[in-house]
Amino acid sequence: MSDQPASTSGGDALTIAQALIRCPSVTPEEGGALRYLQRLLAGAGFEAEIVRFHEEGTADVDNLLATIGSGTPHLVFAGHTDVVPPGDPARWRHPPFEAEIDGGMLYGRGAVDMKGAIACFAAAALSYLAENGPPPGAISLLITGDEEGVAINGTRKLLAWARERGLSFSHCVVGEPTNPEAIGDMIKIGRRGSLSGTLTITGKQGHAAYPHLAANPLRGLARVLDALHMPLDRGTAVFAPSNLEVTSIDTGNPAFNVIPATVTVRFNIRFNDLHTARSLEIRLDKAVAAALEGTGLRAAFAFEPNPAEAFHTEAHDFAALLSEAIAIETGRRPELSTTGGTSDARYIKDYCPVIEFGLVGQTMHQVDERVAVEDLATLTAIYRRLIETYFATVR
Amino acid sequence: MSDQPASTSGGDALTIAQALIRCPSVTPEEGGALRYLQRLLAGAGFEAEIVRFHEEGTADVDNLLATIGSGTPHLVFAGHTDVVPPGDPARWRHPPFEAEIDGGMLYGRGAVDMKGAIACFAAAALSYLAENGPPPGAISLLITGDEEGVAINGTRKLLAWARERGLSFSHCVVGEPTNPEAIGDMIKIGRRGSLSGTLTITGKQGHAAYPHLAANPLRGLARVLDALHMPLDRGTAVFAPSNLEVTSIDTGNPAFNVIPATVTVRFNIRFNDLHTARSLEIRLDKAVAAALEGTGLRAAFAFEPNPAEAFHTEAHDFAALLSEAIAIETGRRPELSTTGGTSDARYIKDYCPVIEFGLVGQTMHQVDERVAVEDLATLTAIYRRLIETYFATVR
Ligand SMILES: [Zn+2]
Ligand SMILES: [Zn+2]
Repeated sequence: MSDQPASTSGGDALTIAQALIRCPSVTPEEGGALRYLQRLLAGAGFEAEIVRFHEEGTADVDNLLATIGSGTPHLVFAGHTDVVPPGDPARWRHPPFEAEIDGGMLYGRGAVDMKGAIACFAAAALSYLAENGPPPGAISLLITGDEEGVAINGTRKLLAWARERGLSFSHCVVGEPTNPEAIGDMIKIGRRGSLSGTLTITGKQGHAAYPHLAANPLRGLARVLDALHMPLDRGTAVFAPSNLEVTSIDTGNPAFNVIPATVTVRFNIRFNDLHTARSLEIRLDKAVAAALEGTGLRAAFAFEPNPAEAFHTEAHDFAALLSEAIAIETGRRPELSTTGGTSDARYIKDYCPVIEFGLVGQTMHQVDERVAVEDLATLTAIYRRLIETYFATVR
Repeated sequence: MSDQPASTSGGDALTIAQALIRCPSVTPEEGGALRYLQRLLAGAGFEAEIVRFHEEGTADVDNLLATIGSGTPHLVFAGHTDVVPPGDPARWRHPPFEAEIDGGMLYGRGAVDMKGAIACFAAAALSYLAENGPPPGAISLLITGDEEGVAINGTRKLLAWARERGLSFSHCVVGEPTNPEAIGDMIKIGRRGSLSGTLTITGKQGHAAYPHLAANPLRGLARVLDALHMPLDRGTAVFAPSNLEVTSIDTGNPAFNVIPATVTVRFNIRFNDLHTARSLEIRLDKAVAAALEGTGLRAAFAFEPNPAEAFHTEAHDFAALLSEAIAIETGRRPELSTTGGTSDARYIKDYCPVIEFGLVGQTMHQVDERVAVEDLATLTAIYRRLIETYFATVR
């Protein structure tokens, strides 16, 4: 890379991204990533503290909160340095923790999800500070090491810890890879909720030749599936229709001549803000009870204890600032979307308006995860423009 | 039992039953049971031969054919000395291979299925021969050691072997335990067919948050189950309606956020003689293809290679002879039924008319399998009366 000027913001982001990828920070290992960021940001004047959270039955996890400036407006960038396991390193074209560049692409676990975006925001903030000095308000980086895992000792606790210390945030951008194809495709302005559950249908075991002496739970299954698949809504202006997918049905009966006693039905619902997890639980319970009425079969639901509720931001001005920055840097008008999975934005939304924008997600969690070096430069420029217009316009 | 006269036929059947139960003849072990029978019958003038069948990939199994007399009519009693495993002997009130009597009940594996019935027929035949001398025709006992197992080296081969030797049978009674509650309840005059199969429905794997990029086979399942559960017929004068039971549905997907690629549906059909296994295969194939039309899901059936076809006897006079013997000995008119599972009668039906009548089936294949000592006497008297009226009336 010696033929490129070392001072471009893209170059800075690339250097930071490479340093981060070389830290093997598979959840819950910190791997040096947070300590590297701490040093980098402290060197530019941030107060940067690593906080370790503990909970019985889970691994301790480190997190980083770095703040420069004080008061409002307070712009927060949120992200995670932990990554999912690389699988068999031999299947990678370039080793997952070596950050090699090949054909204009930077390879490594976390390249897009989301060490790359953290590097871009850090480079953007350092560049802004170098040019403008401390902001009229504050900038924070809220970086967790527990997003890809159980997410118990991560963002949720870090937010509460920051609040206890008197910090309050005005707006947040999360650096998750939101773009399906190219930088500028999509801002996430909310997320659907997610509720998983297991339904157990119980009848009475028996012999296949004597079905009248048994009650086959698989006899009631078609009606139960029809009830589960009933449309939940037609969507809203902001959200797609809610959707339930049955993900596994299991009986485990190896004998062809035996009628089984039970079947389990596992499912996941992605839902919009016409529902809450609790309202869906009540609705499914009623629908399945009605479907099984008169069959002699019993149904019992077990729902996951910590479902993600649906939310979307009302901070249209903030989203417009980011859209404008994207339009200027890429020529694209991003779609404002609420599609996809869940992220730590679901915790941040209880503290301040939150939107999400990062790199292109195509290779995340896969072998040969990689980011275009050019995309790092583009995203850095977008973040840098957001910071500038934010502090120029938000009071 | 010293206070009972030793010469009753019940006593004889009891002695034989105890001797058979004490042979641990869990399939494919002969355990001494066939050799004991061979000696017993040869002593009364039978030509009794033990035949061992062999097939690649299965255990060798012994079988016994014992014949007295020649020509027609030729009455055959068919049965099996092999038994299912006893499970944990400690769970039995009396050891499974010791034939202990307690409270008027004889305990042991095979007591009702079907060493007890073999003992009754042997005792009846010996008693008939002792009183009448050789029959005007022939009596055979066709006893296999491979009914409870894969049934490859058993009745089917023994029948072919007998035919090759020039033997032909006129009528057969199989000693399976046909009575639900009490001796005299039920004669089986046929059996439904049985066809098992596995249906695999294949779609496209994906993420639960992006169902439009996947094809969830569990989405098509309700319609497939409705197609499988469609009534097959309304039954006949002789047979109950055919019935399909789905016995297991399995996906094995542990991840709530993953849409699975395949699901398997295992089922068993008990069918009457309005169908053949092949006609059902074609029918199911069409019905499921129609149910999945336009869904983008694919279905593939795997049917068991050797299904049992439905059959029932046309030998109403022979069934009437047995009914009459039952009525005289028990005061009960047996139901003529085609219910229940399959038996070796399905092979015998291709050689001669076959009906089934034996002990009370309640404890078969269970811990503490047992037979009332009184039932052994009653069944012996029924078989004895059948033999007498058979040779007195059938020409
Ligand atoms: Zn992520
Ligand atoms: Zn049997």
